[in-house]
Amino acid sequence: MPHQDLIVSWLHTIVEATANVAFALSGLLAGVRKRLDMVGLCVVMGLAAFGGGTLRDVLLDRRPFFWVDHPAWLWVLIAAGVGAIFVLRSSHFEFTERAIQWPDALGLGLFAASGTQLALAQDMPSIVAVLMGVVSATFGGILRDVVCNDIPTALRDRRPYAVCAFVGGWVYVLAMQLAWTQGAAFLLAAGTATGLRAWALLSGYSLPGGQTAASGD
Amino acid sequence: MPHQDLIVSWLHTIVEATANVAFALSGLLAGVRKRLDMVGLCVVMGLAAFGGGTLRDVLLDRRPFFWVDHPAWLWVLIAAGVGAIFVLRSSHFEFTERAIQWPDALGLGLFAASGTQLALAQDMPSIVAVLMGVVSATFGGILRDVVCNDIPTALRDRRPYAVCAFVGGWVYVLAMQLAWTQGAAFLLAAGTATGLRAWALLSGYSLPGGQTAASGD
Amino acid sequence: MPHQDLIVSWLHTIVEATANVAFALSGLLAGVRKRLDMVGLCVVMGLAAFGGGTLRDVLLDRRPFFWVDHPAWLWVLIAAGVGAIFVLRSSHFEFTERAIQWPDALGLGLFAASGTQLALAQDMPSIVAVLMGVVSATFGGILRDVVCNDIPTALRDRRPYAVCAFVGGWVYVLAMQLAWTQGAAFLLAAGTATGLRAWALLSGYSLPGGQTAASGD
Repeated sequence: MPHQDLIVSWLHTIVEATANVAFALSGLLAGVRKRLDMVGLCVVMGLAAFGGGTLRDVLLDRRPFFWVDHPAWLWVLIAAGVGAIFVLRSSHFEFTERAIQWPDALGLGLFAASGTQLALAQDMPSIVAVLMGVVSATFGGILRDVVCNDIPTALRDRRPYAVCAFVGGWVYVLAMQLAWTQGAAFLLAAGTATGLRAWALLSGYSLPGGQTAASGD
Repeated sequence: MPHQDLIVSWLHTIVEATANVAFALSGLLAGVRKRLDMVGLCVVMGLAAFGGGTLRDVLLDRRPFFWVDHPAWLWVLIAAGVGAIFVLRSSHFEFTERAIQWPDALGLGLFAASGTQLALAQDMPSIVAVLMGVVSATFGGILRDVVCNDIPTALRDRRPYAVCAFVGGWVYVLAMQLAWTQGAAFLLAAGTATGLRAWALLSGYSLPGGQTAASGD
Repeated sequence: MPHQDLIVSWLHTIVEATANVAFALSGLLAGVRKRLDMVGLCVVMGLAAFGGGTLRDVLLDRRPFFWVDHPAWLWVLIAAGVGAIFVLRSSHFEFTERAIQWPDALGLGLFAASGTQLALAQDMPSIVAVLMGVVSATFGGILRDVVCNDIPTALRDRRPYAVCAFVGGWVYVLAMQLAWTQGAAFLLAAGTATGLRAWALLSGYSLPGGQTAASGD
């Protein structure tokens, strides 16, 4: 394996673990807010962490799923869901919510790049490949919110999230058309999506809204 | 291609485009009502337009999906979702809602017939084939409403919608058993479903309800 | 077929029919509570009865689905959904709800054991196989509640349900590793899950809750 790809592979493992934990924690917080029991916490954590990638794989007809290849993660989720019942205190909430924003942004970049890459490897059209990246990055959160009986945050809060994944996906497509290596394209795409999200978090930027339209309800 | 099939194919393309636009607009209206942002509008339009057909294809294990074969539609949805933020006014709502009822009825007939046809081509039992037509025609709207955190309209408003698709599907099955050509069966089935829906819209017919049962809540 | 397997197969058919009816009735009650129309009742009954097994089969990439192999069940559901509009009275509710608890517990055991068995037959890791059993047993009810716009009961009521399926699945895995026959492992696993559920129903046992955590909302 070339040196650059080795670094990418190593970084990938670290970032993937960080992102899975961040996504799962977002599910845990949502579940506790809705007073779910330990089964509910495990299910919502699993949907938040693996729902997006699994939906992408079902659409692309890919097997095995991530959690079949790495079943140890399922034990981590179960332990976290059961443990949370005993150790989670309300005083942990605000801190946890702010702390997971950054690993969550890493996950956004990682899933956007890897979803696009996997779809391009199946010769999907560029726009479909980019949307597979967006699905990987966002549908875990969407499924989490649907099961918790909320309108999904990602669809209404006007904070750029799916949009960052969308831009990152196009960076990957462009870099591949410029004949970059997969590793370099992956790093640039993931970095762009994560960087955009970090900038949005720091600046408090909101997407243009449909105020007038919304008042037509 | 025989003359009749050519007409069918040409009609099919026109009706399909009309139906996709009507289904997507129903998603747009639902999303604006729920004050979704531009990402939310695109997702809900996509679910409303392609959710039913995609679910049918996942169940039948068919690939490629419609939106992979015709990726230009994805650009149309994105443009509509983003543009709606800037141009949609509340005064457009009532008119749009009434205007899309008729292309929506065309889509109902088209999806009912094509879903039944695709499932029969895989040697599914008749009742399963008919239900695949119903799934194609109705689950886009059901997914749209679930993501918008409503009980799906199609499941509670007692206006015949799924029922029209069901009847249209059986017309297709019957016509094929009478050895009609696929094109003729398709036209008759789609026409029956669309006609029934148009009649229901014009007459205001409601399915028999469970008033007594409902009062047991 | 050896004698023991013949008994298992015969029991399986009986228990399966009983369980499907119980699962479908749970959907019927939920749908009537939400004042769904006859289409809605049929859809929610179908999701409750077949949603879990179908999701498992989509994840495991198995075909044909149960309801494709046994399409007569679809007619039963449609007849029940349409008939319920005319015959169901509120006075039937409490009795039905209590009466279906026991066949529902049979279904829990059956689906837990068969989901685990089907996944192990595809060489899935043990934890994945057990979770496929849990998905089979619980996701029908979860989909039913999501479509009815409720937070799923199975995720919040602290009554052991998914947990019983989880234990039953591990009993199957263990029995297979001890080189039991499939039939014996199936009987013991399904019996364990059903027995645990029956005990939970009789004793009123609740899983430990996150009272403190929940008050942090």
